[in-house]
Amino acid sequence: MRTASYLIALDWGTSSLRAALMAADGAVLDEVSSDDGILSAAAGRGFRAVFDHVAGPWLADHPDSVVLAAGMIGSRQGWREAPYIACPAGFTELGEGLVSLDEHGLTLGLVPGLSAQHADGVPDVMRGEEVQVFGALDALGLDDGLFVLPGTHSKWVRVENRRIVSFHTYMTGEVFALLRWQSILSRLMPDHDTTPWEEGRVVFTKACALAAEGALLHRLFSVRSQGLLGKLPGDQQSDYLSGLLIGEEVREALALTGSPASGHVHLICNAALFVRYQAALSVFGVDSSACSAQASFRGMYAMARERRLIGVLK
Amino acid sequence: MRTASYLIALDWGTSSLRAALMAADGAVLDEVSSDDGILSAAAGRGFRAVFDHVAGPWLADHPDSVVLAAGMIGSRQGWREAPYIACPAGFTELGEGLVSLDEHGLTLGLVPGLSAQHADGVPDVMRGEEVQVFGALDALGLDDGLFVLPGTHSKWVRVENRRIVSFHTYMTGEVFALLRWQSILSRLMPDHDTTPWEEGRVVFTKACALAAEGALLHRLFSVRSQGLLGKLPGDQQSDYLSGLLIGEEVREALALTGSPASGHVHLICNAALFVRYQAALSVFGVDSSACSAQASFRGMYAMARERRLIGVLK
Repeated sequence: MRTASYLIALDWGTSSLRAALMAADGAVLDEVSSDDGILSAAAGRGFRAVFDHVAGPWLADHPDSVVLAAGMIGSRQGWREAPYIACPAGFTELGEGLVSLDEHGLTLGLVPGLSAQHADGVPDVMRGEEVQVFGALDALGLDDGLFVLPGTHSKWVRVENRRIVSFHTYMTGEVFALLRWQSILSRLMPDHDTTPWEEGRVVFTKACALAAEGALLHRLFSVRSQGLLGKLPGDQQSDYLSGLLIGEEVREALALTGSPASGHVHLICNAALFVRYQAALSVFGVDSSACSAQASFRGMYAMARERRLIGVLK
Repeated sequence: MRTASYLIALDWGTSSLRAALMAADGAVLDEVSSDDGILSAAAGRGFRAVFDHVAGPWLADHPDSVVLAAGMIGSRQGWREAPYIACPAGFTELGEGLVSLDEHGLTLGLVPGLSAQHADGVPDVMRGEEVQVFGALDALGLDDGLFVLPGTHSKWVRVENRRIVSFHTYMTGEVFALLRWQSILSRLMPDHDTTPWEEGRVVFTKACALAAEGALLHRLFSVRSQGLLGKLPGDQQSDYLSGLLIGEEVREALALTGSPASGHVHLICNAALFVRYQAALSVFGVDSSACSAQASFRGMYAMARERRLIGVLK
């Protein structure tokens, strides 16, 4: 790829697409979101048509742009596969793993995902979160740290000397959604969660403390047993369930990864998840702070800059 | 209730109904199963019509029958509520908690469920499993033991001196079904599970060993990561997932209840679940044996006999 004056960065996941036009100094000039995740794009008008719709105007205005895409778009179900790179991996390894896609006048770099091999012989994978971590490192000016990306499949990522040395995935968000909406536990809960966090926080924190003792499969049933016996109102059960699961995630992660030496964790997520994870971490005596929600754009920008794909203004 | 010569025993759960006509010596003379669980019965022709359809002919032939029903039929969503009895509870407490329902010439005794209060302040409940445990005790001639009832909501029940002193519920079966059929993990699995147990046993046991180290929310994702990296074929993933969950249940239960002093557990379940739980327990060094599948009928019979509701043949 050539050195360009603009970066078009796409964070293209399973169910959504976020794109930004960035200047050579990293400023976000324009930003677009859409529901055209890889599943709907593949089933619908196709990846190229979605790309042209979202980023075509930027590319027309700024032909001198480099285009990078991270996330599930580089998976086997995506536009083209960018095979996983093994940890430890930093900007160098990630940049070397970029897969270039040339199609009808468009050149696009697909960021690879990362794989980890745990001591127990079981592997782990991520795709898309790696650029968020590198973006947070760049934004915070850090070389080391423990980064947590809460969500459907939460990632706990350990960074040393600007390289991701290991990470673990937790299915917290997906298990919560299944239990909240599709299990027997949903029967005693209201159809919508309307309890404000200031009220839900108490029962959430209580559930985190229970989770600290382990035994998730057992404690999950206590959402129902307490409901049946009139000890937990329906409108508090969702926060209680959330606390059991996020508390379990924190418990498992601190056992597997060890407490961060700094006693501090960087959370990369939206505000609603931030307050929950911050509360859960504090039950376990761990401090936390929030990172920019634009971490993925910043990560792709830092990659482009380090690989001299984009020219920094002098 | 009067002393009768026959017992009509109904095991009436959420989604199914099993009923038996029993003689005064406990012999099962006739048996019927139907899909008329309390949900479909309540939504359809109603409890009385279902009862008359299933047990009406027995009652017509043997007016000298006592009728007992256990399970969700005694819940708030059932025919009439039989409130939970607190543990410890034996035949005496359960019999005293029987709720008699008299309706248009029918007298029916509803067996109450049991509640437990754990040391952490969290309660637990069961409804229907208690008669299975008492049936197994009666059939095996035991006064003590650890009884495990695997299923949607598995129960681990500790019995001392013919009384249920405590129990714990685990949401293993329901969490398995949600993850197997409705989560992202299902995407790499075949549409049907056809792997014979002789083959699935290896990967199931390996997963139980991983589960012994804890960290369920993390290990669940390894079903997918190993699938993506070609380390776990699609047709082995369901048994692997099953091993992670049943292994976690056993790990939690041995931590909460303690290993049985006898080193032995009594399993009350069908043959398919028996081989899985036996394999999982053996990973943790615990022996197990199977109890009769007719334990619920036997339990209601033993209750009726001890409360002299039914006359034993001299």
